[in-house]
Order: sequence, then structure tokens, then C-alpha cells
Amino acid sequence: MDKKDAVREKIITHALHLINTKGIGQTTIQNIMESASLPKGAIYRRFENKELIVLAAFERAGYIIWEHMVQAVAQAPSTIEKLLAISAIYQDAVHNPPIPGGCPMLNTAIESDGTFPELQKLAAEGYTNTVKFVQSLIEEGMEKKELRPDVRAYSLASFLVSSMEGAIMASRLTASNEHVHFNMDYTRALLQSFAYSDPN
Amino acid sequence: MDKKDAVREKIITHALHLINTKGIGQTTIQNIMESASLPKGAIYRRFENKELIVLAAFERAGYIIWEHMVQAVAQAPSTIEKLLAISAIYQDAVHNPPIPGGCPMLNTAIESDGTFPELQKLAAEGYTNTVKFVQSLIEEGMEKKELRPDVRAYSLASFLVSSMEGAIMASRLTASNEHVHFNMDYTRALLQSFAYSDPN
Repeated sequence: MDKKDAVREKIITHALHLINTKGIGQTTIQNIMESASLPKGAIYRRFENKELIVLAAFERAGYIIWEHMVQAVAQAPSTIEKLLAISAIYQDAVHNPPIPGGCPMLNTAIESDGTFPELQKLAAEGYTNTVKFVQSLIEEGMEKKELRPDVRAYSLASFLVSSMEGAIMASRLTASNEHVHFNMDYTRALLQSFAYSDPN
Repeated sequence: MDKKDAVREKIITHALHLINTKGIGQTTIQNIMESASLPKGAIYRRFENKELIVLAAFERAGYIIWEHMVQAVAQAPSTIEKLLAISAIYQDAVHNPPIPGGCPMLNTAIESDGTFPELQKLAAEGYTNTVKFVQSLIEEGMEKKELRPDVRAYSLASFLVSSMEGAIMASRLTASNEHVHFNMDYTRALLQSFAYSDPN
């Protein structure tokens, strides 16, 4: 395609919002039609069924979160600050997450488990890619001698990403950002314990 | 009631299994009837609607997980081992979690968010009670001089519980227990850094 299909983009935007706030099971094509103010035909000409809309919405979510991560990292002056900046993307998980409804990877992971294998596969790839991105930052920090050479980059990356996801769940569940902030505090302490030489 | 209603118990058992593996949205009263081999009347005489079954199933899940935690803690010889034993409840999150389908609190937290306030409230209470239980173990460890006196018991408890939940999500999503094991490794290192005096 030469130019973007604006209607397709609009369908995906509204579908993502609905799916991430209400869940896949609670979102119907009728809901998407109403939210986007589009006739049924406009949707069915572009997507054969709801599953295809859901997959496209998840892909869109991936781009949005990726943008947030790249920006967070670009502005941070050191490896440890880069890693903390990623955690900080969800510092207001309750009221202002990057996408309304919380983390789409977390929500999708839970909702697709055992029910939607193709989507679960996409979400698993999203998790693995996030871990690999964080791993590459850690390895860069080790090369730059900001982090100790005995750090295990892959397992640390997995721990940072999964613990952040758990904290987002806890904060959204209890409507209190304190859990995300506790996660940031312990993550900072953990990373500082891995610093090559304390800058203080 | 003097004696337990065995049919009610059976309905809850089958409902919990279905809900925790397929999700609330994908579980119908028809599914529960078929799974439990019970006629519709047997269910409706005990539960007015699906929501009440879901709430009862979540309560049952809470008892089951609670039992696992109490047992894990009872067998462990020290505070740090008690805390690690709680993490180990989900060491085979992929193939053999305490309840098929993963952690019911995590699953419920995500699925009830924005759609089922009464259930979300129950799940939030479940999270808070788990954190308080872990906090009480930490405080006991501080009193016994197994943990350092400057440990912040509440925030550490929250971090331990939320990071464990995130690791369960990651392991179930990717069908690999490595993420849960990484969580246990970093948790052990963190707790050892808080040990009052190293026993080695």
C-alpha cells in the first residue's frame, strides 16, 4: 500500500482502547463500530473477523510501548538511569499508563492464556523482545564498565521486566501507585549493587 | 448451615477450574453444568447468576493458595527460607501451578479491571492480605534478628509479592519456568543482602 488506510487506523485505535480497558472477551465488533462511529461494512471490508482486529490492535500496542521505551532510554545519561527510565514509563500506572487500561502485554498475556494461541504467541514475542532490549542495555553497560562484569544480563533483564509487570498489576488492582514505586525503589537498589564503581 | 452442601462445593470446584484456565468471559453456566454433570436447576437453586459463582470460586481459590502458603512457611527453618518457600509455590508455574491456569489473583486482577468492580475489590483484598502476611514474616525475622533492622517490611513485602506475580505471568506466557526461577534467584540474593548476619 502506498498510503495509509485512515479508516483502518481508526478501527485499530478504537479497538485497542476498548480491548485494553474492557478485555477482549467484553469487546464486540458492535462496540468498535459505535466507538469509531463507523458502519459495519467499513470494518468487515478491512477485517474478516474480530480475531484479526485484536491481533492488529496488539501489534499497534507494541509500537506505542516501543516508542515509549526508546524515548525513555534516549534521555537517560547512564545505563542504570536508562533501566530505571523504562520502569518509570508506568510510574502512574493507575491514572496515566501509556495506553488506557494498563500494560497491553500483561493484559493480553493473561487473557490469551489457553484461549487464543495466535495472540499468546504474539504476546510471548513481545515479552521476549522487551527482555532482549533490556538485556542489550545491560550488556552495553557492562562493556562501558558501568555495570560489573559478573552481571548475568539475560536473567537480570527478565527479572527487571517481569517484576515491573507484576508491580503494574498490583498498582492497577489496588488503585495505588505505591507498588510501582516500591518496584522502582528496589530496582534502583539492585542496579546500584551491580554498579562497577559507585559514582558517589 | 450444619453440613456442607456437596453439590454447591462441586459447582465451585468446576467453576474455578474453568474460570482460571479459560477466563471469566469464556466461561458460561452451560460450561459449568457440563463440566460438573449437573442440571441447570441444581446450579440456579444455589446461585442466582454467574457473577455469584465467580465470586464464590475466587473465594475458594483464596483458601487453596492460603493453604499452600501456610504449608510452605511451616516447613521452612528460617525467615529467608520461609519467604523463598512462598516464591517456590509457583516454581512449576507452567505445568503444575497450585490451581490449573496459573495464579487466580493475577488472572482475576487483569480480567476484573474495569469490568467487575465487586470481584476486583475481592482480588485487591487478596493482594493486600498476601502482602500483609509476607510483611508479618519479615517483621518476625527482624525481631528474631535474622533480618536487618533497617528493612522496610511493607515495601519489601509488596515487592516480593508483585515481582513473583510478574514472573508467573512471564513463565506462563512463554511456557518456560526460567522466569520464575530467575525471580527466585534474585529474590534470594536480595533477601541475603538484608540478612542480619550471614550464617555462612
